[in-house]
Amino acid sequence: MKRIAIDMDEVLSHFSKKCVDLFNAEYNTTYTMQDLQGKKLSELDARLEQRIDAYLANGTFFLELDVIKDSQEVVRNLCLKYEVFIVTAAMEFPSSLAPKYIWLKKYFPFLNEQNFVFCGDKSIIRADYLIDDTMSNLDDFYGKGLLFTAPHNVNVTGYTRLNSWKEVSAYFLEV
Amino acid sequence: MKRIAIDMDEVLSHFSKKCVDLFNAEYNTTYTMQDLQGKKLSELDARLEQRIDAYLANGTFFLELDVIKDSQEVVRNLCLKYEVFIVTAAMEFPSSLAPKYIWLKKYFPFLNEQNFVFCGDKSIIRADYLIDDTMSNLDDFYGKGLLFTAPHNVNVTGYTRLNSWKEVSAYFLEV
Repeated sequence: MKRIAIDMDEVLSHFSKKCVDLFNAEYNTTYTMQDLQGKKLSELDARLEQRIDAYLANGTFFLELDVIKDSQEVVRNLCLKYEVFIVTAAMEFPSSLAPKYIWLKKYFPFLNEQNFVFCGDKSIIRADYLIDDTMSNLDDFYGKGLLFTAPHNVNVTGYTRLNSWKEVSAYFLEV
Repeated sequence: MKRIAIDMDEVLSHFSKKCVDLFNAEYNTTYTMQDLQGKKLSELDARLEQRIDAYLANGTFFLELDVIKDSQEVVRNLCLKYEVFIVTAAMEFPSSLAPKYIWLKKYFPFLNEQNFVFCGDKSIIRADYLIDDTMSNLDDFYGKGLLFTAPHNVNVTGYTRLNSWKEVSAYFLEV
């Protein structure tokens, strides 16, 4: 059975949307996800770069992320034909560790927690596929990397891109 | 540069000793580490099996573990010739996640947290070597497994065994 490793932030959970929402509330701005297309969060507003560490260090941040459309249904279907691991970078914000676990158990209760991996450098991961929104993670990965579309990477080329969970489903389950 | 993955409990930290100490304090018993040779914790005293989940669920348990002799010096030396990752099973007790991170930063401050991996099933790990006290972790590992001696595994055969951090040093650094 082949193994798929799946990132969390921007792949399963709406990470940047939460950052923008918190920033809008704090600074009375009206940024939308459309404004973020092709930009890093730090490029949207200089003040956001200074606030983001505080947002992420808050223990509730990672608990409150919205789940990305269709991810639950497709991950459940992937589990029928593949070994699925969730592989998330969590070591920059140790306060995110427990919330990320709780979030996964809430939204993906059918996954075995033995298949959760909280790490930093994803070159340590042994899997056939990695679905991730961060190019450097895909570059370091030894298997087949698949770029999941997120606002910051919309203009990036040179990767096999999956724009949605419907496309993940087509890639893995409709062949 | 070859990569070594190193387990935490019973390899870097005195996990079972802390369990026995807590049990002795609670039940006024006098078990020693010698009594544990060749046994799982659950085989030492039936009451310990019932208490261990409560001990581990306490957020301070993993913070208070003693560091195993010579591990700091040898890990530091390994870092000069190898890529070192710390790979620990942490998903059964999510309350252990943050304390394990804090403990590592306290006792191994020279390690990059990007090389910490908190996981369950260690077959996800891509490394050349795994130093671990648990046979099933070594069985699942795709590289060369090395059994680090702990009380529960003293009678186990069929693995390349390292009895101490001095022996780890000899295996990796004196060849």
